[in-house]
Amino acid sequence: MTAPARGFPESEYRARLQRAQRGMAAVGCDALLLTTEADILYFTGFLTRFWESPTRPWFLILPAAGDPVAVIPAIGAALMARGWIADIRTWPAPQPEDDGVSLLADTLTELLGPRARVGLPMGLETQLRMPLTDWARLQALCGLRFDGDSGLVAGLRAVKSEAEIAAIRATCAVAGRAFARVTEIARAGVPLDQVFRDFQRLCLEEGADWVPYLAGAAAPGGYEDVISPATTEPLRPGDVLMLDTGLRRDGYFCDFDRNYAVGPPSPAVREAHAALVAAVEEVAAALRPGQTAAQLHGALRAALSPHGEPGGGRLGHGLGLQLTEGLSLIPEDRTVLEAGMVITLEPGIVLGPGRMLVHEENVVLRETGAEFLSPPAARDIPVLEG
Amino acid sequence: MTAPARGFPESEYRARLQRAQRGMAAVGCDALLLTTEADILYFTGFLTRFWESPTRPWFLILPAAGDPVAVIPAIGAALMARGWIADIRTWPAPQPEDDGVSLLADTLTELLGPRARVGLPMGLETQLRMPLTDWARLQALCGLRFDGDSGLVAGLRAVKSEAEIAAIRATCAVAGRAFARVTEIARAGVPLDQVFRDFQRLCLEEGADWVPYLAGAAAPGGYEDVISPATTEPLRPGDVLMLDTGLRRDGYFCDFDRNYAVGPPSPAVREAHAALVAAVEEVAAALRPGQTAAQLHGALRAALSPHGEPGGGRLGHGLGLQLTEGLSLIPEDRTVLEAGMVITLEPGIVLGPGRMLVHEENVVLRETGAEFLSPPAARDIPVLEG
Repeated sequence: MTAPARGFPESEYRARLQRAQRGMAAVGCDALLLTTEADILYFTGFLTRFWESPTRPWFLILPAAGDPVAVIPAIGAALMARGWIADIRTWPAPQPEDDGVSLLADTLTELLGPRARVGLPMGLETQLRMPLTDWARLQALCGLRFDGDSGLVAGLRAVKSEAEIAAIRATCAVAGRAFARVTEIARAGVPLDQVFRDFQRLCLEEGADWVPYLAGAAAPGGYEDVISPATTEPLRPGDVLMLDTGLRRDGYFCDFDRNYAVGPPSPAVREAHAALVAAVEEVAAALRPGQTAAQLHGALRAALSPHGEPGGGRLGHGLGLQLTEGLSLIPEDRTVLEAGMVITLEPGIVLGPGRMLVHEENVVLRETGAEFLSPPAARDIPVLEG
Repeated sequence: MTAPARGFPESEYRARLQRAQRGMAAVGCDALLLTTEADILYFTGFLTRFWESPTRPWFLILPAAGDPVAVIPAIGAALMARGWIADIRTWPAPQPEDDGVSLLADTLTELLGPRARVGLPMGLETQLRMPLTDWARLQALCGLRFDGDSGLVAGLRAVKSEAEIAAIRATCAVAGRAFARVTEIARAGVPLDQVFRDFQRLCLEEGADWVPYLAGAAAPGGYEDVISPATTEPLRPGDVLMLDTGLRRDGYFCDFDRNYAVGPPSPAVREAHAALVAAVEEVAAALRPGQTAAQLHGALRAALSPHGEPGGGRLGHGLGLQLTEGLSLIPEDRTVLEAGMVITLEPGIVLGPGRMLVHEENVVLRETGAEFLSPPAARDIPVLEG
């Protein structure tokens, strides 16, 4: 297994900072304040599973000019110092009376003066990762104006650099190798929860750092929902097994699924699978910068409509340092697609009440069209021992 | 492997609701509004890895009288309906213009009338899992008064039922079996990132549903920090390897670590390990309801001080549906310990600059003292092939 290099040179982070600073000038803010794992990782390279602990807040300040400043719990200082961030200020979190709030307020005021405008991600899909009480206290402590970032950070993160694309491709390759080995672990009689455990083991064996997301289902001729945990029910001949994984390698996610027939598939299942794969191939081939997310959604529906009722809801989304991020393939999302965006294409076909097939691939949009990052599925649904 | 039963009967959730409703009467609020995975899981049993996607907000309303109402994305309706919640209202998320906000506002007003007071977790360690823009819009749309919950939800979750204690014990047992097999995967020459992957595989083989958290380190005579990802450096004779896992089974976390010597340990490492294990045994034996978190912190420091400088920072925390939750073993936390609280005891000893050992166990506090949920470590540090 030839594993691609890990991490990025400082120049990658400086380029991200420069884009952010150009954006800040355009939207008129004096700094960005970031609090979430993905936003902080994007600008610093601070990669740790410690975000699983919700106890402590973490802050990164990107000033409109100059280098970022990290205001973080002391427990993270050694790891942050291994990266390119030089100005790291810490407090011994958690501190019930003042959990970094006054340190953050002082740092913001020192860097920006008393009248600055600070932008935060506040729109769709964002969260503020600090207690609301502390958020109110921060605003009271410093007279700064806090406001939305006009989607700046999400917009920057949506368009990937070549280094990021290579990282996501490497992640997708790990999942591709694991999916190719599902015949080793799944056949009629194996309980679904055992398949889930073994599939995660395959992901690790093939190079995943960890497996934050695995969903799936197995049911006769199609499944009802795609977010439930595994039951202990054994696979049965006639089931369609679907596994959908978002594993991480070097911080980046993949997010795609594969379907398997347990024993010979019915004609309906076979045709639905072929139609889904064909629709993704067809739509990917026609994809170009300048189209909108809504148009891409429409193209996926149109490609599937000869084959049955397209699955409802969103038919894909952005992908990167989060399992899902950025644009949504829905009629209401008018985001204009740009070269460098990494997108999941995730159409479904409803075969009957509570019986659906969903197929998903990951692509990067180039000037000339879509390039698959996930190793594309074959039209024939793979068959497990029935 | 005899796996304990999964899930809880409706009576468990009704008991949790009743405690919440008694608490609401005491703090004077007409409903609780919950948005995070752990809070919603606690009251509904809605267990899914789909929280890994930050795209969609999820809402649960607990009225001061009557049953809970879930206001959730349509993609979660089928799974939520399998549990005990009867009133489930959905919208086709994500919707850029109105992502559940008006549905939530209408539902709150319908349930509570126009002048109610709604409590949300807003204190230490909490987050509001919805965009700030939507939070402002919600407050503008309905004239309700939103306020902190006075720590009510965290307080309820901190004291576990017998069913929860059994679930956490089962999770700890999975990790215990995986730790007992570390000799199979770790010896001098094996790269640390390979040890991390293989250890996660062992956790899955032993019954973990998934492994959200694994941290650790390996370094000569002790390690510097405990939150970094694994390097590709091979284990070397003289290293101390530490693995710290928070795996999940049926929704509940464990959080404990184990240390291993690569080849024969130095006397300093051997003594530090024995002292840490002895300190946890000694402090656990003396633990009683009515003591405070600060006193427990002090007891751990006192037990270790004859053996060297105790590791700084927090020496343990609450545990349950989150890797870390509730109280902190720090001098500033005056939380009074109660029977039913599940706590990690996590002392460290500093052996030199950048050289530390940390040992962690999970216990439940009973009226008569602490009961170990993690299979307690032996004082002798286990030795891997050097």
